[in-house]
Amino acid sequence: MTDLFWPGDERAGSHFTAEDFVGAMLAVEEEWLGRDLHVRVDAERLAHDAESGGNPVIALVRLLREHEPDVHRGLTSQDVVDSALMRMASSAVETLRRDLRSVVDRLARLADRHRETPMVARTLTQHAVPTTFGFRAAAWLTAVLDAYDDLDRLALPDQVGGAAGTRAAIVELGRSVPEGVPRWHTTRAPMTRLGDALAGCTDACVRIANDVLTMSRPEIGELAEGSGGGSSTMPQKANPTLSVLVRRAALTTPQLATTLHLAAAQQLDDRADGGWHAEWATLRDLVRRTLVAVSQTDDLLAGLVVHADRMAATLDSAGDGVLAEQRSMASAAGRPPASSYLGDAVAHVGEVVARAHRTLEEKH
Amino acid sequence: MTDLFWPGDERAGSHFTAEDFVGAMLAVEEEWLGRDLHVRVDAERLAHDAESGGNPVIALVRLLREHEPDVHRGLTSQDVVDSALMRMASSAVETLRRDLRSVVDRLARLADRHRETPMVARTLTQHAVPTTFGFRAAAWLTAVLDAYDDLDRLALPDQVGGAAGTRAAIVELGRSVPEGVPRWHTTRAPMTRLGDALAGCTDACVRIANDVLTMSRPEIGELAEGSGGGSSTMPQKANPTLSVLVRRAALTTPQLATTLHLAAAQQLDDRADGGWHAEWATLRDLVRRTLVAVSQTDDLLAGLVVHADRMAATLDSAGDGVLAEQRSMASAAGRPPASSYLGDAVAHVGEVVARAHRTLEEKH
Amino acid sequence: MTDLFWPGDERAGSHFTAEDFVGAMLAVEEEWLGRDLHVRVDAERLAHDAESGGNPVIALVRLLREHEPDVHRGLTSQDVVDSALMRMASSAVETLRRDLRSVVDRLARLADRHRETPMVARTLTQHAVPTTFGFRAAAWLTAVLDAYDDLDRLALPDQVGGAAGTRAAIVELGRSVPEGVPRWHTTRAPMTRLGDALAGCTDACVRIANDVLTMSRPEIGELAEGSGGGSSTMPQKANPTLSVLVRRAALTTPQLATTLHLAAAQQLDDRADGGWHAEWATLRDLVRRTLVAVSQTDDLLAGLVVHADRMAATLDSAGDGVLAEQRSMASAAGRPPASSYLGDAVAHVGEVVARAHRTLEEKH
Amino acid sequence: MTDLFWPGDERAGSHFTAEDFVGAMLAVEEEWLGRDLHVRVDAERLAHDAESGGNPVIALVRLLREHEPDVHRGLTSQDVVDSALMRMASSAVETLRRDLRSVVDRLARLADRHRETPMVARTLTQHAVPTTFGFRAAAWLTAVLDAYDDLDRLALPDQVGGAAGTRAAIVELGRSVPEGVPRWHTTRAPMTRLGDALAGCTDACVRIANDVLTMSRPEIGELAEGSGGGSSTMPQKANPTLSVLVRRAALTTPQLATTLHLAAAQQLDDRADGGWHAEWATLRDLVRRTLVAVSQTDDLLAGLVVHADRMAATLDSAGDGVLAEQRSMASAAGRPPASSYLGDAVAHVGEVVARAHRTLEEKH
Repeated sequence: MTDLFWPGDERAGSHFTAEDFVGAMLAVEEEWLGRDLHVRVDAERLAHDAESGGNPVIALVRLLREHEPDVHRGLTSQDVVDSALMRMASSAVETLRRDLRSVVDRLARLADRHRETPMVARTLTQHAVPTTFGFRAAAWLTAVLDAYDDLDRLALPDQVGGAAGTRAAIVELGRSVPEGVPRWHTTRAPMTRLGDALAGCTDACVRIANDVLTMSRPEIGELAEGSGGGSSTMPQKANPTLSVLVRRAALTTPQLATTLHLAAAQQLDDRADGGWHAEWATLRDLVRRTLVAVSQTDDLLAGLVVHADRMAATLDSAGDGVLAEQRSMASAAGRPPASSYLGDAVAHVGEVVARAHRTLEEKH
Repeated sequence: MTDLFWPGDERAGSHFTAEDFVGAMLAVEEEWLGRDLHVRVDAERLAHDAESGGNPVIALVRLLREHEPDVHRGLTSQDVVDSALMRMASSAVETLRRDLRSVVDRLARLADRHRETPMVARTLTQHAVPTTFGFRAAAWLTAVLDAYDDLDRLALPDQVGGAAGTRAAIVELGRSVPEGVPRWHTTRAPMTRLGDALAGCTDACVRIANDVLTMSRPEIGELAEGSGGGSSTMPQKANPTLSVLVRRAALTTPQLATTLHLAAAQQLDDRADGGWHAEWATLRDLVRRTLVAVSQTDDLLAGLVVHADRMAATLDSAGDGVLAEQRSMASAAGRPPASSYLGDAVAHVGEVVARAHRTLEEKH
Repeated sequence: MTDLFWPGDERAGSHFTAEDFVGAMLAVEEEWLGRDLHVRVDAERLAHDAESGGNPVIALVRLLREHEPDVHRGLTSQDVVDSALMRMASSAVETLRRDLRSVVDRLARLADRHRETPMVARTLTQHAVPTTFGFRAAAWLTAVLDAYDDLDRLALPDQVGGAAGTRAAIVELGRSVPEGVPRWHTTRAPMTRLGDALAGCTDACVRIANDVLTMSRPEIGELAEGSGGGSSTMPQKANPTLSVLVRRAALTTPQLATTLHLAAAQQLDDRADGGWHAEWATLRDLVRRTLVAVSQTDDLLAGLVVHADRMAATLDSAGDGVLAEQRSMASAAGRPPASSYLGDAVAHVGEVVARAHRTLEEKH
Repeated sequence: MTDLFWPGDERAGSHFTAEDFVGAMLAVEEEWLGRDLHVRVDAERLAHDAESGGNPVIALVRLLREHEPDVHRGLTSQDVVDSALMRMASSAVETLRRDLRSVVDRLARLADRHRETPMVARTLTQHAVPTTFGFRAAAWLTAVLDAYDDLDRLALPDQVGGAAGTRAAIVELGRSVPEGVPRWHTTRAPMTRLGDALAGCTDACVRIANDVLTMSRPEIGELAEGSGGGSSTMPQKANPTLSVLVRRAALTTPQLATTLHLAAAQQLDDRADGGWHAEWATLRDLVRRTLVAVSQTDDLLAGLVVHADRMAATLDSAGDGVLAEQRSMASAAGRPPASSYLGDAVAHVGEVVARAHRTLEEKH
């Protein structure tokens, strides 16, 4: 079911849908049991039955035990939900990394192609000094590479602790837990780190969208979305729709990541009384919105139209002002101004593009 | 479709579902057109088609014009979406007010019944002075009445401005706009006030849930949820599930209300480039979670078990310490301590209950 | 002490400084005592002594009792802090209302003067239809009037409850509390409503700043700040500094208002274990930043330069496109297009200006 | 100046004070100049002069140029502010790491000492199964180690980009930038990663405080703060003041970290129009509150009183219920229940303590 309140939602595919959640919880239970249960679980019914236990696992286990009484032995609800969330997240992050690599590839080409395309730099909205469009694209690329690195560092572990983290039932049953599987019922760094990294992705995407929105204003006209969105009433309009929707996402995801921190800050006892429960839908929304925003950014770049002529014309019309700093520096240095005032912009583009290539080659 | 990631979601019924949204947008268009269109719109398909225009109205209008070319004349997408959101909100707020009146009624009875039930007051987690459980219930009631008053003050207007708020097309068509319908494309107080009031509702509900969670700890045992939730592994557990779920909600809604303020803070031009789009799903989640939390609070109170004996025993065992302040005051006043140290607690309960009755009688 | 990390902070004057806080707490104690204490309290030393009691009142009372042993009898720390916060807030809100009235006055004149100044309307960053600059200023004015109305509705009460809200010590002492003074130790609507209203003020101010930032871009050039800020390195720069600083504020205040809601959501027992303590600095920052932003907006408007010629030129160069909707409407209506396509923009300006005048005349 | 609105503020020492900021900016300028300027800058006057330029560097440079005209050549304001912020942050993070190592050391001893101290585990506020207090302390320790690891990974770079990041003035002057110094005017990952890591520190501290607050309730009485805080009116009170103040911090820091993400999401052009300016005070508050919270947590642990007898008594009185799971598991396994039901709790404590020792030994 695509979300009518979040246009583009279908780009997130089946990640973190109800069916995905059921499937992930079932996989956790089956793996722990050691065999497949060949059971069909109705997500809608499970959702209705979830409230009385406070989470969906109690109803799920009741249902599974009709087939196999030994299911879930030694686990607690939180083991199953947390492991399922992290497995779903793992798959989503894999998709995100793939999509981000495509964004990186597009940006590297864009930066490289325009490394010498002259443009006016703007600071605090005003014309500043000359730059190149490739230099700007290199900034976008840096933001995306930083976000990619953060995703890359994430650990998304299973959770196996039993009722209160001590694995008492597991030991009582004479079982053991796979090497390296932690227990983190009340220490939520795996969750907050994930949330922070996802917010970092939309921070990077909106870095691009903000510039496209500004530079595609008709008075500036230096960039355009390939195929703008129409208006319901104005036939002539071509709106920068993808940029608008990316921007939308980035206005919401930081607060979702905060909610994960606030949930972490409510941890107490051996399992918490509400902080944990606040995470599930929050993570779902954060993941799906990030997937949508990255995918939209990829399309935005695929269609991006660069008007190098307008860039040159703007720089030209900016006139002497943008060389005022140069004159002041040359005077301080006691030399006539150099013929160009681009600093190391072109070389910097090369370095960022090289970083991009290293990232793309590491592709796991 | 109940949300598996938000147990209890079904309590919000059809408010702000995709079908509700489609229905509300259709009603706006039909009302503007002046007649029913007898058309069936597939919400899922509309959701898929919404991205290219950046909102669902463009696809909706395309579809409706297959039946009736004159639909939507003079309106802009934002007129339709905003009016639909406010109409859905209006219906949801009506439900909220009804459910809050039930909460008010239960709390007024509870406070009244226990106005003299002795209990120890606790401040900064420690025993302080004597109080009554009715006094505590009156605090809960005050919080709920304050939230109710804020809901009561809301205006949830339609939106009719046309392409850029000037109603140019409407005038060109020789039409007029119903008296009192404002235009607020880029001035979002109707949205932020709504969000703030909804967050106020969960603030009030969690005021109750926090106390139930604390006072139903086995070492305190002064309150209990009527029918606790079970555990997936521990047969003896009776968890305060409704309180946990109310608490969950209140950890998330303030951040959603913030997002509405941040969206308001991104308004510019004559219609904004992302701030507006961030509101729809945010408001949906905020409304539904508030509806669920209020309904759960109502059930929580319906089943609440008050252990007056435990309250008395705790107060008794708290001993002389809780009268230390009284001795110090009596000594300052140069009199022996009075026989009771409840101040005006009982009278205060009466005043809050009277406020509740006034609210219930105003019932519109 | 002006805040070096928040340029413009001095505009908030002495509102919510340490000295203001000490003075307000002292006034509360003196009023309760019934006479002046003629004591000088060192704010810095009080701040150092505040941690051990968790709040500044315990150290303050210890100090005051060296002069007068009967001080504070019947009150609790929270009574003094909350009353002091609300009195400081009351004074700050009075200043805010005065400054907002000045903003309203400037905007009403601006809107009126330019009610017919032609300009292109922009939606989703693109040219839409014709409008007037007065119509835009009327939108700014509407946002400010909405914020003003919310400030106007606030109640900022004292707090008198005693140790656990029951006023037991007060009754024991044979004293009474002034009519209408509530107790709200754990029901924080007075605090959250204040926070929401303050965030509403910065939402309104940034509505203006966002447009100035966009319209003062050199490619658009329709507005300019009167005296732009310089650059540390580029001699030619004139930055829209006031707009930038207003925008800064509005990116932070909604999260501060959220913190007040989250603090409200942590209330439990008869006085809370951290939620209350989180409010003080949060409210201080929220109040001061709002004061600064409103004052900066007032100055921004005082100096605002309107380039009506550039507005006309832009509209002219936008060409036929911005009349495409009109042609489509006229064709639907079966008539030639009217000579103007401004809808009821000019009349609407008049209505908003009239609302402003009503507000200014109500001036208390 | 200690913050009267934030008791305990003095624990943050001179980190991120106005003088620290001035000193750091001066150091950046002097280092770039290549020699000391032996100038005294009045922080208060600089603060007053900061607004017109939008940041304090313009006024600072004006002042410094009275002494040395060549100062700041090639830099832009943002280079100086960002480098200064990161240098101050670097020093603060060093203090944080030192304090966290002390917390780690205390927790490792505590967990080790109590690895076999029996206690009842609590989940969703209710008694669950047996555990040990050392196991609980190991959870606290895990949270702190996770936070420490995140701090450890931070890069806090200088910023040198010049007017628009291209280093044009630097090249024009024939100068070069030290190897490895990046430019990140509009790509704010260094800032958001720092904010996220700081919020992670308070998440970890409040994990401890929440448990102390609950377990020091008189009805539970298993823990106590060494020296509780007094009350302004109740002579007998001993409040868990440090825990309360730590909890306060953790209710505010996530929203500050969000603000840094939202500021990152407002980046555009070559230097931004407000997003950057929102960072300074936000980071200051985030850093100082984290320093205070970690220091308070260290003191809290230094004085923590563990009532092992109460823990044993609670477990005892919890009775058969907490072994219900064991009986169910033993029956499933077809064996009589084992004599203990602690799972691998004791071994797990050993592993976490070992991780702590590895961290302490890595101490640089």
